[in-house]
Amino acid sequence: MKYRLLSRLDLPQELKKLSLKQEEELCAEIRDKIISTVSKNGGHLSSNLGAVELTVAIHKVFDSPNDKIVFDVGHQSYTHKLLTGRYKDFHTLRKKGGISGFTRPSESEHDSNISGHSSNSISVALGMAEAMRLSGDGHHVVAVIGDGAMTGGLAFEGLNNAGNSGCNIIVILNYNEMSISKNIGGLAAYLSELRTKVTYRNIKSGAKKVIGSIPIIGSGISSIISASKDSIKERILHSTMFEDFGFEFIGPVDGHNLEKLEAALKSAKELGGPVLVQVNTVKGKGYVPAEQQPGEYHGVGKFDAETGEKQESGPSFSDEFGKELARLAKKDERIIGITAAMKYGVGLNHFNDGLKDRLFDVGIAEEHAVSFAAGLATMGKLPVFSVYSSFLQRSYDELIHDIAIPGLHTVLAICNAGIVGEDGETHQGLFDIPFLTTVPGVTIYSPAGYEEMRLCLNKALYEDKGLSAVRMPKGGEDFIGTPTTEFEYKNRGSDTLIIAYGRLSSEAEKASLDLGADLLRLTRIFPLQDEAIEIIRSHKFAYIFEECMKEGSVGEKIAALAPNTVRTAIEDFVPCMSVCEAFKLYGLTAEKMTEKIRSRNAET
Amino acid sequence: MKYRLLSRLDLPQELKKLSLKQEEELCAEIRDKIISTVSKNGGHLSSNLGAVELTVAIHKVFDSPNDKIVFDVGHQSYTHKLLTGRYKDFHTLRKKGGISGFTRPSESEHDSNISGHSSNSISVALGMAEAMRLSGDGHHVVAVIGDGAMTGGLAFEGLNNAGNSGCNIIVILNYNEMSISKNIGGLAAYLSELRTKVTYRNIKSGAKKVIGSIPIIGSGISSIISASKDSIKERILHSTMFEDFGFEFIGPVDGHNLEKLEAALKSAKELGGPVLVQVNTVKGKGYVPAEQQPGEYHGVGKFDAETGEKQESGPSFSDEFGKELARLAKKDERIIGITAAMKYGVGLNHFNDGLKDRLFDVGIAEEHAVSFAAGLATMGKLPVFSVYSSFLQRSYDELIHDIAIPGLHTVLAICNAGIVGEDGETHQGLFDIPFLTTVPGVTIYSPAGYEEMRLCLNKALYEDKGLSAVRMPKGGEDFIGTPTTEFEYKNRGSDTLIIAYGRLSSEAEKASLDLGADLLRLTRIFPLQDEAIEIIRSHKFAYIFEECMKEGSVGEKIAALAPNTVRTAIEDFVPCMSVCEAFKLYGLTAEKMTEKIRSRNAET
Repeated sequence: MKYRLLSRLDLPQELKKLSLKQEEELCAEIRDKIISTVSKNGGHLSSNLGAVELTVAIHKVFDSPNDKIVFDVGHQSYTHKLLTGRYKDFHTLRKKGGISGFTRPSESEHDSNISGHSSNSISVALGMAEAMRLSGDGHHVVAVIGDGAMTGGLAFEGLNNAGNSGCNIIVILNYNEMSISKNIGGLAAYLSELRTKVTYRNIKSGAKKVIGSIPIIGSGISSIISASKDSIKERILHSTMFEDFGFEFIGPVDGHNLEKLEAALKSAKELGGPVLVQVNTVKGKGYVPAEQQPGEYHGVGKFDAETGEKQESGPSFSDEFGKELARLAKKDERIIGITAAMKYGVGLNHFNDGLKDRLFDVGIAEEHAVSFAAGLATMGKLPVFSVYSSFLQRSYDELIHDIAIPGLHTVLAICNAGIVGEDGETHQGLFDIPFLTTVPGVTIYSPAGYEEMRLCLNKALYEDKGLSAVRMPKGGEDFIGTPTTEFEYKNRGSDTLIIAYGRLSSEAEKASLDLGADLLRLTRIFPLQDEAIEIIRSHKFAYIFEECMKEGSVGEKIAALAPNTVRTAIEDFVPCMSVCEAFKLYGLTAEKMTEKIRSRNAET
Repeated sequence: MKYRLLSRLDLPQELKKLSLKQEEELCAEIRDKIISTVSKNGGHLSSNLGAVELTVAIHKVFDSPNDKIVFDVGHQSYTHKLLTGRYKDFHTLRKKGGISGFTRPSESEHDSNISGHSSNSISVALGMAEAMRLSGDGHHVVAVIGDGAMTGGLAFEGLNNAGNSGCNIIVILNYNEMSISKNIGGLAAYLSELRTKVTYRNIKSGAKKVIGSIPIIGSGISSIISASKDSIKERILHSTMFEDFGFEFIGPVDGHNLEKLEAALKSAKELGGPVLVQVNTVKGKGYVPAEQQPGEYHGVGKFDAETGEKQESGPSFSDEFGKELARLAKKDERIIGITAAMKYGVGLNHFNDGLKDRLFDVGIAEEHAVSFAAGLATMGKLPVFSVYSSFLQRSYDELIHDIAIPGLHTVLAICNAGIVGEDGETHQGLFDIPFLTTVPGVTIYSPAGYEEMRLCLNKALYEDKGLSAVRMPKGGEDFIGTPTTEFEYKNRGSDTLIIAYGRLSSEAEKASLDLGADLLRLTRIFPLQDEAIEIIRSHKFAYIFEECMKEGSVGEKIAALAPNTVRTAIEDFVPCMSVCEAFKLYGLTAEKMTEKIRSRNAET
């Protein structure tokens, strides 16, 4: 495709000059650009394809960056990026130094917020809107949030505060019946019902007139509802949950009809105050494979844009974990699997056949997942919450309060622990060790291979007490060693020791062979074993390498006990780049390890 | 009062044998017992007085501990404690080794959950209910949650998951229009409207019959609402937000009428599945001073039960902080105060007069508070979120994601940092240093006195970048030193150094004088200054004492850099006891410090 409009227009300004037909042409160009780029670079496809017309309409009606557009999660921000000066660099999507797959204020003045984690958009947008109100700035703030993200409690807190704020805040509910997996919960059922209603605001004005002219509506009803026709009116006119929160409600609007979208957004803008616009979209719109299997094309690696055929992904830790847990669950009725809308990503798709009633997908609700697990554990169940490291950050308080204080036995399967690559700073699994180690009584494993992961999982389930966590990196194993749940020590008689755990075991092993150094591979990384500390102390030089934030790292804990320890860990947020690139940059490859050790040993 | 029933009955079993009149007598005894005990020991008064009849009704209708009662926050659990075997020990309320002010499973089989932090009850209850369902156990789970706690996102996540679970879960919404301060937000407005409606479920059964018999309801309306009488029915019958989530709704019920309460709870039990019962109660019921000023008598110290007169509390860090921030805000329009339903507790009551529009009480919604601050900061405001240390745990992810990644300048005023005393393990402020130090770019101060606090606050607002936190203990200053925002070093020429910060400065100063040791008093505790580390390293013996969890503590960070450091910190949850008792137990008094240092120095 030639991208006739995308390549020539001065966007977003010139968007306002386009005819409807030209806008439609622009949408087709955007879709094509997204599909071709994501097929090469990987990225979020279905959600972005679903929001093309919606985003064009937003930029047509509103005036970014004076009006603020706040994207929730950011899985739908590619069109926004193409419309705000990033068309030429779009081929660098999710590459080191390139365009982020999420909104990043450092990338463009049009990216008003950091996105990546779910359900924060209404809160952030309300902060902006209150700031505008206080400063007498009459611009608008628009939050764009999917129905999946709406299941997060933070979104509810935002709605609750925004609804009676009186601020110019427009919340666009991008309704597609999906989070990453199919949506669940009472809200999903409710919204699904709302989806099929006739356009709401249109009848509202009509209804006001008609009902106003009916004197009495029948003695039967009127006696029930306190004899007041106001009550009937309220029931008809005041019919959505969002209005209960104080929002004006517009919708549902066809999310692929530019004319209707722009009309609805203009109405919302004119109304002022808090307005919620429900927009019905089709995830994957315009790309047949993604429309048919939106979950499969939510976040994708490279694929063939013509056929939709995806590159096979190999075995992975999360998949092997899911298989093992399902195997155990078939023998042990107490085992319960819990996921926060990521069944496939965290391996719990293996809970099928006879296990479906013991798999709980709680929606995007990591806090609830943990408190829910506490309830299950109280009753003697064995809950296993499988979750990405970066999203577990949401559950910190519940882990302390609901699990650790009463000492309930609960297992965390932490997927995408460590550096995750292209999703960048919001998705790195670098904080789980620092925050989990603060929780009294926790046990943490970081197995290097599948067999070791299975050993750790079994130990966590059947031997440990209280909170126990098994951390797994994204992707598959490339090191096996001698599987253990404690530590593996390779004594080669050297005065230099390399310490590593999890995925870095492989690089550490190579470096130790290069240097003829001893190797201490930790599997249980917390609490540390006295024996392991003794081994470390017995060396002249000890070097630990970690994909973990330095503050609160295993290395910090070791160094506080064994002062000969030299630490390499992550000290700041890690932006989008491949895992290999990150390992090189942060000194975590075998080569960099060897280099550092040689130069430091020489100094001393 | 003689407590004729409370002292003689075998509760909760014998409750079922009581007549309505005896139950009323029991309620009067319970109220008296609560007022007299709290007047001596301090504790939560208003919320407990409001829930007396409700709790008696619950124990009458349900069969604890086979049926599970899950209290949210636990501010209302005293009646439950008196009814479940703890009458005799109730005088030990909030004393070391005594009855906790919150539910604690370790205390009684009738305390099914840990309470203290808000909004988790529905999630915990759902876990119990799903466990029962899976095990074929037909008992019920009852969550008791106030409308204040209902503003927390976690409660919403629980509602969303419980609503379509099909489990026997009964949520009792204890509606009193208060959290600790007056409730706010769209939900509060909505519930307030609901409060005044005629009893709902009573008309529902009637309405079904009557509406079913009306053939057409008038062409005007029917044309508007898709010509279907089902739509009208739905509007009338399906009228609460909770039903939108999939709950059966019963209420509002008069929360001080035992007969009506028991009838409603019996209905809920018979209905099965998820049922929400709205109960209207009066906070402080039966004690005039508390009814008139429920906020003032929410959490209280000792008071005169006859007159309601409270012991004067002296000046406090939070109060002095609030005054200073208000002073600055009057000069600087960018400053915004944010509280999560604790205006008085965190000193933001000083935002009055011309500052009211820059004070945001967001309800019990710590996650939202931080994301909201991010939006304000994006627009050039200077948000200050003033919050208890233990409740800030809820905001961990938002601090990383919404504040630290984009590097937005936001100030945290952390109240009740360190040991808090009688509220026990759920309320200790022992985790904020370990979790905040993991956030890249954070600056943390722990001032020892008011003037130092003011210096730190000014520096945090006007010199620091990114996230900056000023930690303050509960209560007032008892040490001044030479106010600084860095550190204060008292070199007495000793080879022994004592390191402390914040409130412990006072004890450390005494110990250092006793021993003739040097003293290093840290004010900025993170990041640590190289100079401070050099001072520590220059001593033969260095001892740090902290009211902080050991893992992730300042001492751990120092020990990783200065191996001569001997650490004293907290290693497990701290149950209810006074601050003094805790200092003694954990070796944080001057005497204990001296003792430890003498014996360790002698060993080496």
